[in-house]
Amino acid sequence: MSDVLDADEIAAELPDGWHHDAEADEIARTFEFDSYLEGVGFAAGAGGLAEEAFHHPTMTVEWREVEVRLTTHDAGGVTAKDIDLAERLNGLVE
Amino acid sequence: MSDVLDADEIAAELPDGWHHDAEADEIARTFEFDSYLEGVGFAAGAGGLAEEAFHHPTMTVEWREVEVRLTTHDAGGVTAKDIDLAERLNGLVE
Repeated sequence: MSDVLDADEIAAELPDGWHHDAEADEIARTFEFDSYLEGVGFAAGAGGLAEEAFHHPTMTVEWREVEVRLTTHDAGGVTAKDIDLAERLNGLVE
Repeated sequence: MSDVLDADEIAAELPDGWHHDAEADEIARTFEFDSYLEGVGFAAGAGGLAEEAFHHPTMTVEWREVEVRLTTHDAGGVTAKDIDLAERLNGLVE
């Protein structure tokens, strides 16, 4: 199991566009898109990466945006698994 | 624009598995799946129906479940558009 990162470690390692929601013990990013179906497609692709990592975010799909929230439930906070998947999800929109 | 339905009308027309969240002025259903990627695939298919109807729900994708929430923002409540899309989304899992 990965170690829980403290707030300073999270701040140092947080990928572009993500923020640390300390109250929820999560990292989050809202991805924005030019069309609704681009957002839907992103969520589908993100789901593939999540399944491969066996690390499943909460993804909220709305009109032209998808909010992704990551935490490591079995560790009780944000770990390197969350940072790693956040980086990979950013790769889908670069 | 569709007319806003009152609570009795919603109760009478609500498709199987959906409930009326009166506080949020929404109808909602949590769809459950045997695998994570089935849920992701459902969300992608639901996105196609939503785009065709140009009526976009809030879909929250988690591990093996997808919560869908529907309301008609420009009408300020639940309308026949929500009931119709809810029926069609049920058709994806029948």
